[in-house]
Amino acid sequence: MPSAGDLVFLWSPAKGDSFLVRLSPGSVQGSHLGQMKHDDIASMEYGDVILTNRGEPFFILRPSIGEYSRRVKRLTQVIFPKDSGFIIQHLNFGPGATVVECGTGSGGMTSVFAHFVGDEGRVVSYEKREEFSKLAESNAERWGVRHRVEFKIRDIKDGFDEREADAVFLDVKNPWDFIGAARDALAWGNRIGVLVPTFNQIEKTLEALRDNGFVDVQVLELLMRYFKTDPKRLRPDDMMTAHTGFLIFAAKAKAIPDIDISGQEEALPDAPEIEAGDALVP
Amino acid sequence: MPSAGDLVFLWSPAKGDSFLVRLSPGSVQGSHLGQMKHDDIASMEYGDVILTNRGEPFFILRPSIGEYSRRVKRLTQVIFPKDSGFIIQHLNFGPGATVVECGTGSGGMTSVFAHFVGDEGRVVSYEKREEFSKLAESNAERWGVRHRVEFKIRDIKDGFDEREADAVFLDVKNPWDFIGAARDALAWGNRIGVLVPTFNQIEKTLEALRDNGFVDVQVLELLMRYFKTDPKRLRPDDMMTAHTGFLIFAAKAKAIPDIDISGQEEALPDAPEIEAGDALVP
Amino acid sequence: MPSAGDLVFLWSPAKGDSFLVRLSPGSVQGSHLGQMKHDDIASMEYGDVILTNRGEPFFILRPSIGEYSRRVKRLTQVIFPKDSGFIIQHLNFGPGATVVECGTGSGGMTSVFAHFVGDEGRVVSYEKREEFSKLAESNAERWGVRHRVEFKIRDIKDGFDEREADAVFLDVKNPWDFIGAARDALAWGNRIGVLVPTFNQIEKTLEALRDNGFVDVQVLELLMRYFKTDPKRLRPDDMMTAHTGFLIFAAKAKAIPDIDISGQEEALPDAPEIEAGDALVP
Amino acid sequence: MPSAGDLVFLWSPAKGDSFLVRLSPGSVQGSHLGQMKHDDIASMEYGDVILTNRGEPFFILRPSIGEYSRRVKRLTQVIFPKDSGFIIQHLNFGPGATVVECGTGSGGMTSVFAHFVGDEGRVVSYEKREEFSKLAESNAERWGVRHRVEFKIRDIKDGFDEREADAVFLDVKNPWDFIGAARDALAWGNRIGVLVPTFNQIEKTLEALRDNGFVDVQVLELLMRYFKTDPKRLRPDDMMTAHTGFLIFAAKAKAIPDIDISGQEEALPDAPEIEAGDALVP
Repeated sequence: MPSAGDLVFLWSPAKGDSFLVRLSPGSVQGSHLGQMKHDDIASMEYGDVILTNRGEPFFILRPSIGEYSRRVKRLTQVIFPKDSGFIIQHLNFGPGATVVECGTGSGGMTSVFAHFVGDEGRVVSYEKREEFSKLAESNAERWGVRHRVEFKIRDIKDGFDEREADAVFLDVKNPWDFIGAARDALAWGNRIGVLVPTFNQIEKTLEALRDNGFVDVQVLELLMRYFKTDPKRLRPDDMMTAHTGFLIFAAKAKAIPDIDISGQEEALPDAPEIEAGDALVP
Repeated sequence: MPSAGDLVFLWSPAKGDSFLVRLSPGSVQGSHLGQMKHDDIASMEYGDVILTNRGEPFFILRPSIGEYSRRVKRLTQVIFPKDSGFIIQHLNFGPGATVVECGTGSGGMTSVFAHFVGDEGRVVSYEKREEFSKLAESNAERWGVRHRVEFKIRDIKDGFDEREADAVFLDVKNPWDFIGAARDALAWGNRIGVLVPTFNQIEKTLEALRDNGFVDVQVLELLMRYFKTDPKRLRPDDMMTAHTGFLIFAAKAKAIPDIDISGQEEALPDAPEIEAGDALVP
Repeated sequence: MPSAGDLVFLWSPAKGDSFLVRLSPGSVQGSHLGQMKHDDIASMEYGDVILTNRGEPFFILRPSIGEYSRRVKRLTQVIFPKDSGFIIQHLNFGPGATVVECGTGSGGMTSVFAHFVGDEGRVVSYEKREEFSKLAESNAERWGVRHRVEFKIRDIKDGFDEREADAVFLDVKNPWDFIGAARDALAWGNRIGVLVPTFNQIEKTLEALRDNGFVDVQVLELLMRYFKTDPKRLRPDDMMTAHTGFLIFAAKAKAIPDIDISGQEEALPDAPEIEAGDALVP
Repeated sequence: MPSAGDLVFLWSPAKGDSFLVRLSPGSVQGSHLGQMKHDDIASMEYGDVILTNRGEPFFILRPSIGEYSRRVKRLTQVIFPKDSGFIIQHLNFGPGATVVECGTGSGGMTSVFAHFVGDEGRVVSYEKREEFSKLAESNAERWGVRHRVEFKIRDIKDGFDEREADAVFLDVKNPWDFIGAARDALAWGNRIGVLVPTFNQIEKTLEALRDNGFVDVQVLELLMRYFKTDPKRLRPDDMMTAHTGFLIFAAKAKAIPDIDISGQEEALPDAPEIEAGDALVP
């Protein structure tokens, strides 16, 4: 049963009208379909239907971090679940991890990171624009993970304070300028992740990664397509997001002068045929 | 510094020859490029290069759950990081969550789930074929998350034992037969996730979800494309995985006779323009 | 130099304001950027810039059948160049071909077909709704290919009049009901093409194709992604069309009772590695 | 009924064993499934089944230009139907057109172009490597369109001989070096098409197009996904071609010093909602 202070997800069968709402005594949630009192929602159970003052139904559901990160209040482009879900798996990440992020932006990714490092983990998030950092702080607070994050408001041109980090993630315009700083912050053998929207940025980032001795470099993009859900007329939606950003990953290793790493491994497609030979030796 | 019992990721600049290895005193790792002694690896540091007996270099890197889940020993198709990363964000999931899974299969997904629920969380994984369950158990053991998983070897035709679960995930041939059981196991307002490879299965699953009063039904697929990493010849790989499976999600709600949920919300594309209006009310 | 009666393509550097215009003495073309007199356009050359009465430039370019078919006046969904271009190559098609189409719809595809069969070719297009057929006729007239098309206004439940056709193309709601009629119209060894938007329709069409002894069955979809054209910020557009329709192709062959054609050839990916062995024997 | 000199398409229900064969008296076609005599094929009809000496069936089907261009004998990468079909529609192309191409390569695209310009049209194809040009000539001969093509064996650094061409298509490593030559060859208001595999090449080509005053610049890529054709297990193939090349198009216009064309129109997605306003004025 949801109570004051809880985030609830109000979902309407009418197309596209759904809300993430933090319940607050005396408040009212507006919608195109009418209004709902928070106190009424708090008197009901998850899974229940609440009717607006115009008689339109909304289902009271539980929120997920994916919905949350897509819907945070924001001043910047957000990072989408398709991308963040891959990032947290390809980086050395999970409960207890220490992760360094720059820039914070609106903090959607910060909240995702903080969600999955758990109470034993720690996210350090750098941002030079104070209003962004404050917004991200407020977004992390709403999701209940503020205590896991250290927000630092400053440029990273002088590097990160951290060392031996489990993962570093860069979402800045010029990541190539900070690959050296990221290298200093990472533990040996761990990975950096970078998100950039343009090919020109991939090009410069790849050059910087090689100049800094990173190995196992991978570049990829993820496309997500939704389907209409009428089982008798099953088909993809008419439109889809064609592009959010490209993901670049690489591992910090000791550059050995005599070893040519320029011929990077071609990233394995996720195909079982190809991977079948990659035995896990006990 | 890696030590006996640790999983290390051995990465070669030569294309496609990389290994996840659990260090074991006296063991030897073979490869197309020659052999490496585990004891030698254990005497080095992460980020170091070890040379095979033929002088070929391998970098000693840290593994990630993404690499691990793609490379588990297996008897079945695995679930790929692009899919599992989205699943754990769209379901109500994270450190401390209780998750029910069926079928266990080779346990790649089980290990991902167990990785992200942390020590306070719990995964219950059902599988009717004993050899699969045993393999999954061994795979979870290798990743160090065995203690977070309860493996149950039995058919789910009589339902799940659990109630009030944070999430249920079905990866079986006939998920439509178990939507009712999944509903019983889930807490109100929480979500089920289903993975199926064919459209015929989507069709039947959608019908079962509606018959069981699930709402906020979404169907989607994720495509991942790798790029060649030469910055002077930047381009996608020639081939890509065209299909792993379709993801279906829905939330458990109280069916209200007078409310038509057949006109499900069209899933929102992840486009900021469209989401901009979805305010988070404090 | 364009003259009265010619179709010209007016392209503005301002985003999205471009027009296909048939020049007509005394007419005026309106736009968000102001008006242009047709007589002024006809006094200029292709490649020239005409300024609107508000001083905004439009370039006078030549139209292509691709632009035309996307922009025909219409009452129905159009078929896009990505799809029609593949169709005319996979079917036995080209100058001189005889092609049967049903339904006519708004005639975008009819005009494409008529464009590529040339003056020696012939398109027969069936449509039961008279207003659609009339619109398609007018669209073919505008593109200058009306004389190559025979429009038939009637249902095809009694079959097509044609025999020995080079190709049959179906764009109707229930193609499975007309596979037999299409078979009668086709010459032996030639191909049918079908466009359907839903998976349920693919399923039924595949069953009908097999019941009618068609072989070399292929199902495919084409996705097109545009890129932003700033060379310094090269990246895909934010949104793309996720779905127009699925294409189904099959060849008319003599069903042989003892030969199982149920195990259809898996369509070859367009990859040179795989095709390299498909020698053309002189 | 096929006769000596005809190209026939032999299709086997066994996966992936199909052939384009030119019938020649006394010849024998081999396959993994046994041999077939050309004289036997010529005594049968299209749509018939011929059995190999091992009793395996092959269906005798008619070839299409799409199948042909994918299967030409070749020394180079071919251009695939998904791409060539779009090219011939976006360029000002069709029966009677005069088209200039460089380089010829193995001539797959040359044959497609020659197929669709018809007997009144003309293709001029430049190639500096004589063996490529000779192979392309032989490929055009086999498809029966040799008489429509003029093969020129020489570098184009001194430009094309043609003027007022309906279309120019470049498939060379450094298209940016020949944009000026292409401009000279094109008629005003007509379009150039360029195919390049890498982003670095797109970048340089876009710069050259703008320096040469081209307008209506569009960059796009086409992805094709095949499906398995079992109607009861409908699903995409496991693997697909992830990349063939990027297509660039632009129209030749008169550069006007005072008009900024740098803010190019964003290419319209092929979505009817967006195009609905693009009226065709009669």
